[in-house]
Amino acid sequence: MTERLVVIGGDAAGMSGSSQARRRRGPDDLQIDVFEKTGWVSYSACGEPYFIGGEVTDLTSLVARTPEQFAARDIAVHLGHEVMSIDTSARTVIVRSGGTDRTESYDQLLYTTGAAPLRPPIEGIDLVGVHTLKTLDDALAIKNAAAQVSDAVIVGGGYIGLEVAEAFHHLGINVTIVTSGDTVLNRTLDPEMGALATDAIRKKGIPVITGRRVRCLPDDSGRVGGVSCDDERVDAQLVILALGFAPVSGLAAASGIPLGPTGAVAVDDHQRTAIDGIWAAGDCAEALHRVSRQPVNLHLGTVANKQGRVAGINLGGGDASFPGVLGTAITKVLDIEMARTGLTVDEAIAAGFDAVAATTRSTTMAGYWPASSPMTLKVTAEVGTGRLLGAQIVGGPTAGKRVDILAAGIWEATSGHDFSMMDLSYAPPFSGVWDPVLVAARNAADAAMSGV
Amino acid sequence: MTERLVVIGGDAAGMSGSSQARRRRGPDDLQIDVFEKTGWVSYSACGEPYFIGGEVTDLTSLVARTPEQFAARDIAVHLGHEVMSIDTSARTVIVRSGGTDRTESYDQLLYTTGAAPLRPPIEGIDLVGVHTLKTLDDALAIKNAAAQVSDAVIVGGGYIGLEVAEAFHHLGINVTIVTSGDTVLNRTLDPEMGALATDAIRKKGIPVITGRRVRCLPDDSGRVGGVSCDDERVDAQLVILALGFAPVSGLAAASGIPLGPTGAVAVDDHQRTAIDGIWAAGDCAEALHRVSRQPVNLHLGTVANKQGRVAGINLGGGDASFPGVLGTAITKVLDIEMARTGLTVDEAIAAGFDAVAATTRSTTMAGYWPASSPMTLKVTAEVGTGRLLGAQIVGGPTAGKRVDILAAGIWEATSGHDFSMMDLSYAPPFSGVWDPVLVAARNAADAAMSGV
Repeated sequence: MTERLVVIGGDAAGMSGSSQARRRRGPDDLQIDVFEKTGWVSYSACGEPYFIGGEVTDLTSLVARTPEQFAARDIAVHLGHEVMSIDTSARTVIVRSGGTDRTESYDQLLYTTGAAPLRPPIEGIDLVGVHTLKTLDDALAIKNAAAQVSDAVIVGGGYIGLEVAEAFHHLGINVTIVTSGDTVLNRTLDPEMGALATDAIRKKGIPVITGRRVRCLPDDSGRVGGVSCDDERVDAQLVILALGFAPVSGLAAASGIPLGPTGAVAVDDHQRTAIDGIWAAGDCAEALHRVSRQPVNLHLGTVANKQGRVAGINLGGGDASFPGVLGTAITKVLDIEMARTGLTVDEAIAAGFDAVAATTRSTTMAGYWPASSPMTLKVTAEVGTGRLLGAQIVGGPTAGKRVDILAAGIWEATSGHDFSMMDLSYAPPFSGVWDPVLVAARNAADAAMSGV
Repeated sequence: MTERLVVIGGDAAGMSGSSQARRRRGPDDLQIDVFEKTGWVSYSACGEPYFIGGEVTDLTSLVARTPEQFAARDIAVHLGHEVMSIDTSARTVIVRSGGTDRTESYDQLLYTTGAAPLRPPIEGIDLVGVHTLKTLDDALAIKNAAAQVSDAVIVGGGYIGLEVAEAFHHLGINVTIVTSGDTVLNRTLDPEMGALATDAIRKKGIPVITGRRVRCLPDDSGRVGGVSCDDERVDAQLVILALGFAPVSGLAAASGIPLGPTGAVAVDDHQRTAIDGIWAAGDCAEALHRVSRQPVNLHLGTVANKQGRVAGINLGGGDASFPGVLGTAITKVLDIEMARTGLTVDEAIAAGFDAVAATTRSTTMAGYWPASSPMTLKVTAEVGTGRLLGAQIVGGPTAGKRVDILAAGIWEATSGHDFSMMDLSYAPPFSGVWDPVLVAARNAADAAMSGV
């Protein structure tokens, strides 16, 4: 008998899950229906700032696969279909499309609703000209709006905020970043690392106003005309709210699918929820942090793709486990790269570790190489063992992606001393003879072992 | 009573060892004398091609520390001092300087003589205008010669050959690479990966003649005027022999210090030779390959620095072990990056593994990112377990250094499937959402597990 898999949400997690399930089970064995409330599936939200900035000229190039391509693989994508409720006993969902509700049954349900931009109660938030960025439609709206303005404000100093600021800077718009944090990326980097990034961004000609909350102010026509942060006013005909995301877990909660402590859907390592036949993955779901061993809720395409894959393999009859996350992330503003993985010292202490960190100032390439630029690494290690727990990097071109090598060491719970003797590649255009990650790991382990 | 440490050879391994020993033992406890036969210590041989090519304008910027700086740390560097023999029973060495020999005693001896360029019996090899590259003096001589010529030939397709070819290309010299191998880097990369690199280099306007051996031909004045490779003649007023290096182990062998199967000095994991009180490190010494578990002899600054450090810590009364090598290496020609780590399939089979490899074609950044370029990865894995054994990469900017992430997985003997789920960083300017190294590791593990 043919089973039916219903997928709620057709972005990274949902479509990765659908694809993996289909690979393992043919259409006679498993019918797959994806309900997606927007007009797009399988798109790279991470690419949107670069569409806005003009590096990516064709919005459709951000779409990995079209509904037609999925249809050719017997995965039915239903655009403009919003799932309104789930009856976990009857194994049915109510789907709204074109104003009409209908009931659809399922045998297996994959809940991949993603995350939605936060919209806190900011005065003037609903003015025309105030945008959030999540979907391709959002990106298109912002790009069109940007073509009409000379001044813009980004509210929020996180990844999306920085990337859209860079995009506007590319477009020749006077852009100002306003954040309530003391630095940009203040939830990602420690204060002094965040300050490094903030100063570097300012030096590129992008003002950053920190420690301030905003109100959006109307112009004479009632559109947004600026923002007010305490006693300072910044003109802006376009305001982007980039204040983070929340998991779209309300539908799950209302249907009795348990959420975890983060407010996202609780899942086990196979991406099963607590309700039989219901799976969840991606931005709407929790993930186990591999270092803290605590559930976290990240909104990253990498995690969504991997969790979707795991869910899909299991839905397809395989046996896959999601091995956890380190929260590894990277961004750039012009030629300033910023990255992190694992835990900061404060996070490590909160997770029960006795932890220290060491900061290492180095260069991206051999010191005498002309294109070499400064690179600062802050590495967290466990006191007494020297085990690597986390890393932050701020630096010039090629600095950021090095976080992956540290992530590999943290992934394996390697000690910083062992890590520092790893056989990494070297030539002067690429690094010093001791790659900065090796030195940084050694310094962290030294700090962690001093007095032991 | 003060012990005396004599160090033979003052480059990376010798000076790293001296520095570490000094850190742990003051001058009243340990006298350190370094005998260096050339006029330089502690220099970056890897930077020499870039001095020749002009990226590095000041030769002295390749010197990490001067003899004066070492003297300030109570490390006595004796330039122009060649050790002629070692009496391991009497614990003395005969040192030649300014034509005079004298005997010096030691309590501990660190043998760090490095490697010397191979000079096989090639016709015309002694003609004026035929150079090898190892020391800073060699680099200076080549740079001076290059200023006078319009055509040059590089004999050899290894790292140094490629890097000097790039340097000459930068200088506007017509440079041709001639190698007896079927491709460039034929001892580093598998044939099809080597062919990728060779084709890319040719497309940059640097001819590569493969599968040919050369004779150096004199011009009318008796200087080199070209090379002949079979029926082909290439004009060249400057010929660089870049045919690899051999460990300078003759002095050790003549003194009864046992060599290993590679012809380099045999050492244990503490860098001790078989003779009490004699240590060796760097290009002249063997290193245990962490995957094959066999001794190898590499000529890499990374290994020399690490082994020297281990020897120095132990000489200083500490307890350090050298954890082995993967043979990780990287180079570039213009914007073509080439790197490897671990074992090729043939090497893995020779080492007793049942091994396969999978080739993955990807892009350096998100496929839609304008600066993205092709990147090919070939990963070796063990049949039945999927354990990562080795990796090769050829690709555009940022491709090469990714070999380090694979090196981290190989270092820990991770399975390709586990590796592929690691939480690496992603943003479109840096990679696809699945970094190519993750996909390549998965593909290799899939190949290794198919039919299991």
